[in-house]
Amino acid sequence: MSTTSAIRGEIVTAANEQASAGVDRVGVATLLEHGRTLSAPVLRSAVDRLASPMDTVAAYHFGWIDAAGNPADGDGGKAVRPALALLSAEAAGAPAEVGIPGAVAVELVHNFSLLHDDLMDGDEQRRHRDTVWKVHGPALAILVGDALFALANEVLLEQGTVEAGRATRRLTRASRKLIDGQAQDISFEHRERVAVEECLQMEGNKTGALLACAASIGAVLGGASEADADALEEYGYHLGLSFQAIDDLLGIWGDPAATGKQTWSDLRQRKKSLPVVAALAAGGPASERLAALLAADAKAADSSETGDIGGFDEEEFATRAALIEEAGGREWTSGEARRQYATAIAALDKMDMPGEVRRKLVGLADFVVVRER
Amino acid sequence: MSTTSAIRGEIVTAANEQASAGVDRVGVATLLEHGRTLSAPVLRSAVDRLASPMDTVAAYHFGWIDAAGNPADGDGGKAVRPALALLSAEAAGAPAEVGIPGAVAVELVHNFSLLHDDLMDGDEQRRHRDTVWKVHGPALAILVGDALFALANEVLLEQGTVEAGRATRRLTRASRKLIDGQAQDISFEHRERVAVEECLQMEGNKTGALLACAASIGAVLGGASEADADALEEYGYHLGLSFQAIDDLLGIWGDPAATGKQTWSDLRQRKKSLPVVAALAAGGPASERLAALLAADAKAADSSETGDIGGFDEEEFATRAALIEEAGGREWTSGEARRQYATAIAALDKMDMPGEVRRKLVGLADFVVVRER
Repeated sequence: MSTTSAIRGEIVTAANEQASAGVDRVGVATLLEHGRTLSAPVLRSAVDRLASPMDTVAAYHFGWIDAAGNPADGDGGKAVRPALALLSAEAAGAPAEVGIPGAVAVELVHNFSLLHDDLMDGDEQRRHRDTVWKVHGPALAILVGDALFALANEVLLEQGTVEAGRATRRLTRASRKLIDGQAQDISFEHRERVAVEECLQMEGNKTGALLACAASIGAVLGGASEADADALEEYGYHLGLSFQAIDDLLGIWGDPAATGKQTWSDLRQRKKSLPVVAALAAGGPASERLAALLAADAKAADSSETGDIGGFDEEEFATRAALIEEAGGREWTSGEARRQYATAIAALDKMDMPGEVRRKLVGLADFVVVRER
Repeated sequence: MSTTSAIRGEIVTAANEQASAGVDRVGVATLLEHGRTLSAPVLRSAVDRLASPMDTVAAYHFGWIDAAGNPADGDGGKAVRPALALLSAEAAGAPAEVGIPGAVAVELVHNFSLLHDDLMDGDEQRRHRDTVWKVHGPALAILVGDALFALANEVLLEQGTVEAGRATRRLTRASRKLIDGQAQDISFEHRERVAVEECLQMEGNKTGALLACAASIGAVLGGASEADADALEEYGYHLGLSFQAIDDLLGIWGDPAATGKQTWSDLRQRKKSLPVVAALAAGGPASERLAALLAADAKAADSSETGDIGGFDEEEFATRAALIEEAGGREWTSGEARRQYATAIAALDKMDMPGEVRRKLVGLADFVVVRER
């Protein structure tokens, strides 16, 4: 079994080759902090508009209060999306502040999807805290998700400008893709075979579309042309796919101490992630043995009371992981992460932007792709 | 126990007094049919954009196919909202067709809320069919609801006009009120006392806000002034409150053969509807006896295994209904239905519109308020 740092190492090398002009880690920390500082007050005042008890539930979800209602300084996520939104305003030659309503709207849509997905997937933990449905029940998880989604459009549209209308249209398109992606992800769980292309499309919808929107929404609010906004969307979309490919690698071979998940996490959940579908599509003896094993696992899970294969020991997961690697699923996914990263960076050349902003966008991409887990 | 036709009779009389110039029932049927015919193809093509299996699930919800996937001609609702949206375009001097994207967007938001509310409330039947969560599971009920909500904004915004941006902003505001109303409704179930004003506000959010949007969105798309759009919103909002007051009366005293619900339906669900909160607020011996009985019911429900009071016989519900009536809750609610209806019709005078359109809006209001159940 390989370690998380080895997986990161492969990509760090790739990233350094591709983006030697990137800003350093300290620079990225400043960028993220800047995005958080500018967008947090607007996000908070938007959430404050929610009727009770939804305002409290949302505040718990964002980590501003604990389950008992006391002020907290919980983990609200890395805030990559707000940083991207503000940078994209600067890419269009506008002040970062112009991107703030976009940054807030994207964060609201992101958190709407987390609230609903956690409920649908039955996930009990998020950002090291119990999920909202677990603490406040399914009805409030649905309602607060709905409310954050509506609030996202509200925050944008109350700008009342033509640009805000364009931005809302792009955000709506991204939201629909997010929903499509979750529907695909759920339907894949019940299918024996998923094509690599289908998996990439699902991950593009689930992860790529909203990062694409984050990376362009500030520019749209700043009056960028459709072509420039499209270039930034392309950067964000492929950045999302690169991130997801690495996430899929870590979901199988990641070190639990670093990822905070169980060993073989995605194998336990029988996810049709990229390494798995690539290995199944590859053909050859290892691919065929893997297919036979996974088909038997599906049968066992269907007939078990809990609907999972929790009784497996480490050895059995290790066998499956080894077959995925032998069939080439791991190598293909690493390569795909590098290819998507390269496509993301190349998209930046389609737009004329200040060199300093371009360097920051590359630095943020490096952070997203090689980030600490 | 009074009959449904007696309840309708009270309001029919009121309606006829207020709106002797209203169009007749045949005219209303034509209006509703016209709204359905113009909006249905656009609604269908919007729903067709959803990724599989969400398109199928939505088609089932709208009654276009049955649970087995065969074409059906199910009840898709009365389509009052589309008719209102098209009429409101005509009120602003635009062709009815200008209101179509608004009609479709409002129907999409309405059905998004039905999908989520049925799941939250555990309702198993809607329009004489099993609800979506019952047939396709909770995850798809959440996802398809989310998708319809996103689609509503998409349909409006792809018009790409300033008017579409204004319409989307109003729709978003109405959607947030809808969500607030559902949150209030759920929280009221756990409270011993709810003020009449709180109940009216909740019903205004749950029923009034989207009817207000339906009644104005066509006008907004047709370029109406903010003042004219506000007048039409006021008409729709109070029409919604009048409808809801009658619905609350029917929820207690309605004839099951006519309403399609159980006898004492709202009492069985221990709803804090208008007659109940008005009776509790009235004071006096009947009000106090009612309060004591309902408090004991709440205790019994909390300690029962099913969480309800299903073991009650007809006599026990009849006692509660009689106390509500004795305390004046029924009379107050009837009066409130008439007052809200009058406010709705009066709002039409704040806007200069063709006489024929005004007559149709009054006719539609009569239909909504005195409608067959």
